[in-house]
Amino acid sequence: MNGAHISLVSLGVADIERSVRFYEALGWVRSGTGDESVAFLQGGNIALGLIGRAALAEDANVDDSAAGFSAVTLAVNLPSEADVDEHFQKALAAGAAGRKPPQKVFWGGYSGYFADPDGHLWEVAHNPFFPLDDTGAIRLPGETE
Amino acid sequence: MNGAHISLVSLGVADIERSVRFYEALGWVRSGTGDESVAFLQGGNIALGLIGRAALAEDANVDDSAAGFSAVTLAVNLPSEADVDEHFQKALAAGAAGRKPPQKVFWGGYSGYFADPDGHLWEVAHNPFFPLDDTGAIRLPGETE
Repeated sequence: MNGAHISLVSLGVADIERSVRFYEALGWVRSGTGDESVAFLQGGNIALGLIGRAALAEDANVDDSAAGFSAVTLAVNLPSEADVDEHFQKALAAGAAGRKPPQKVFWGGYSGYFADPDGHLWEVAHNPFFPLDDTGAIRLPGETE
Repeated sequence: MNGAHISLVSLGVADIERSVRFYEALGWVRSGTGDESVAFLQGGNIALGLIGRAALAEDANVDDSAAGFSAVTLAVNLPSEADVDEHFQKALAAGAAGRKPPQKVFWGGYSGYFADPDGHLWEVAHNPFFPLDDTGAIRLPGETE
């Protein structure tokens, strides 16, 4: 295995249990590993870590400076526009804030954005040009090298 | 497929080609899809999107407010401490800024952090408690439900 992969995405949050409930409502499955300071959930090929924001900053040895636009978005690609609508509604019902209702977008797909309880941005998209396997993993077309 | 997965992680960057070179040096493979405004790279089961920071904010319909601590980290888990050291050094050689040299950490693993050219934080870790498959995907132990 080389290092070109992502095993785990960690999100700094204000209330771990609130965030666990949110992600469980979206289908993520909590693992028995973890403790009161961190929760881990599995979804497809990815583990999601939920940890206090200050603790995450400390772990990474960076300042917990005021949040701005994180310039990171996490995308859930789904097989159809109807699947996108359904997942987006499920997120709103679980307490997400809508940022962009699912809509046809300039690149030929269908996409919306919501923010989780801490403002972390998720895109929910159907991209007819990106094939998905049955775990939701994209296999990019036309690798150039 | 339910919506509990991550297909694509998008990072807002200042210079797409600089970032492509950085991630190629770490083993990510650029796809022929994309154009001058966005690049896509494959790594394991994940696609990485590199897009201008302002364009990403506009796509998500949020303000491109000043960057602080993003409260998002992306982790590369590897099979051994030696693999962690090697990948960390490769990142530094490619232009990453070291944030925390790989070291034994309180939870019983071995972990370091670097920042990519735009400050996005990557953890490189060996976690003896999290089994990895051959794509680098974690299979969390002891799912509770």
